Amino acid sequence: MRKRPVSLKTLAQALSVSMSTVSRALRNHPDISPELTRKVQLLAQELQYSPNPLAMGLLRSQTYTIGVIVPDLVTHFFASIISGIERVANEHGYHIVIRSSYESYQKEKECLADLLKLRVDGIIMCLAQETQEYAHFDALLDAEVPLVFFDRVCRATEVATVVVDNQEAARRITRHFFEGGYRRIAHIAGPASLNITQERIEGYQQALAACGLPFEESLLVHCDLSIASATAATQRLLALPNRPDAIFGVNDTTAFAAMKELKRQGLRIPQDVALVGFTDEFHATVVEPTLTSVMHPTVEIGQEAALLFLEQARAATHPAPRQTILTTQLVVRDSSAPKPA
Amino acid sequence: MRKRPVSLKTLAQALSVSMSTVSRALRNHPDISPELTRKVQLLAQELQYSPNPLAMGLLRSQTYTIGVIVPDLVTHFFASIISGIERVANEHGYHIVIRSSYESYQKEKECLADLLKLRVDGIIMCLAQETQEYAHFDALLDAEVPLVFFDRVCRATEVATVVVDNQEAARRITRHFFEGGYRRIAHIAGPASLNITQERIEGYQQALAACGLPFEESLLVHCDLSIASATAATQRLLALPNRPDAIFGVNDTTAFAAMKELKRQGLRIPQDVALVGFTDEFHATVVEPTLTSVMHPTVEIGQEAALLFLEQARAATHPAPRQTILTTQLVVRDSSAPKPA
Repeated sequence: MRKRPVSLKTLAQALSVSMSTVSRALRNHPDISPELTRKVQLLAQELQYSPNPLAMGLLRSQTYTIGVIVPDLVTHFFASIISGIERVANEHGYHIVIRSSYESYQKEKECLADLLKLRVDGIIMCLAQETQEYAHFDALLDAEVPLVFFDRVCRATEVATVVVDNQEAARRITRHFFEGGYRRIAHIAGPASLNITQERIEGYQQALAACGLPFEESLLVHCDLSIASATAATQRLLALPNRPDAIFGVNDTTAFAAMKELKRQGLRIPQDVALVGFTDEFHATVVEPTLTSVMHPTVEIGQEAALLFLEQARAATHPAPRQTILTTQLVVRDSSAPKPA
Repeated sequence: MRKRPVSLKTLAQALSVSMSTVSRALRNHPDISPELTRKVQLLAQELQYSPNPLAMGLLRSQTYTIGVIVPDLVTHFFASIISGIERVANEHGYHIVIRSSYESYQKEKECLADLLKLRVDGIIMCLAQETQEYAHFDALLDAEVPLVFFDRVCRATEVATVVVDNQEAARRITRHFFEGGYRRIAHIAGPASLNITQERIEGYQQALAACGLPFEESLLVHCDLSIASATAATQRLLALPNRPDAIFGVNDTTAFAAMKELKRQGLRIPQDVALVGFTDEFHATVVEPTLTSVMHPTVEIGQEAALLFLEQARAATHPAPRQTILTTQLVVRDSSAPKPA
């Protein structure tokens, strides 16, 4: 009845252990206890597990290329991360082959398939917004093809990831508004499916609670990270009977789109509505008022992702997935100056 | 005495014809007259010309990859062009492998050598600022490896190029200032070695002359396109005994850096100094005042470059180099509003 052959994942799920544990047990890795190793090998035999030959083929010859998939190339955030990946990759004799998923799940699967056909040595990527099913990574994980996620991640127990301290950043922004005298703090969040969205919402809610402010559902709005959608989200907030006195946007585009919309409606920043974004340094200092923002260590995210890739590409045995959490910084500028008493 | 073997270029120079003409003559291409074909073949024989075998090897197997070299990845201009290249390349089954030259001649040569080692099917690139010698392209040209330059170009009679109407754009900006009542129009130009710098200076000077304004050397300053250097260039202009009443910056970074410096010195835009840049649409509309600017058709530049690559990659015989000139648009916003009478 079953069409799909038994995979490492099947074994891992059946035994409630990670895929890399199964993989290492099958290769008699010393890190795995003899009991577990026996258990895994017995089950593998029983279920007639055999490694995915197609995926395994990818491992045979090295091309010294890394496939990099990003939701888009044009955003400063991704361009800057790619430049970090490229720098480390080149230093170690690797080339990067770049594909955009355009935030589409279907396109992401295509990019992945194309890059594997090209026989890249591994993949570094950020998930598309639409992606909520993760089975397209099974073959790579089975074959232990080096895989690193950054920023938007999934299956963090199986895959190496590079993320920033999203919760803490959101807590810091919310507390910063509170300390400046703001009480109706709104958040323009990203799509609900993304880990970065969830983590930032959690941090926002935690800080509200810690500051003794109620969480008001109407002050939490979502956007799809496009300019149009961030503008619409800002409009929804400003149309509230009791509008927010502070807005924190989930990323670059959101912050600048909100700033533009606030100005269009003739609202003063920060006197009428204060604003904080996640942005790059340069543009935040050119706009007026200058924009308080969380600075992502974008180049470092890319460099770290490339290092995690190299660690996997060079390891004799597949290393356990590592999660790197980089620290962001809140840079206070004019757009969130304290309310006059 | 001569170490370097006779190349297509040598033959072309000796006969005062293009390299592609020589190449086609050697292959008895019908486009070349029988007389010229005979002349070329005789000279080739005489000088013992033989095609560069290493470079020729590159042509043998197709990898369906295109090497893309940009001065940097992070600038919106290049990120956006790459996204245009990627889109067309992917549609036609090609992948792009990206390298940054970091504006270094040495690094540009390394990138080129690395990509050829990787056996890419061809190269699409923008020259590094430092690059003023172009011999590193000889081997590619000899072997007729598809090569396309965009924005900053060289050897335009031998290589396909995609550029914008730089002269006309500069003329339009200068005229726009003049019509708004500005008379001391300064230009922050790029490095003197770049074709874009020269073409924009020419347009600027032509328009000054057409408007009956003298060209003042002190109003033409150069920068290396970095934020720091553009800031310093702005400072030099503002320190003049008789400072300019209008500045036109050669690119994105220059325009925003000049805006930031003008504000830092407490000067009003446009009342004290008007400003026009070459920028992307989005950020130009967020800054205050909104920035008048020449919009580059960046995605189209990338798409056009990819199409020129495909044309070469698919041609049975190497096509004559084509130059595509794309039209820019001057989008007038607040930073260059007319002077009050």
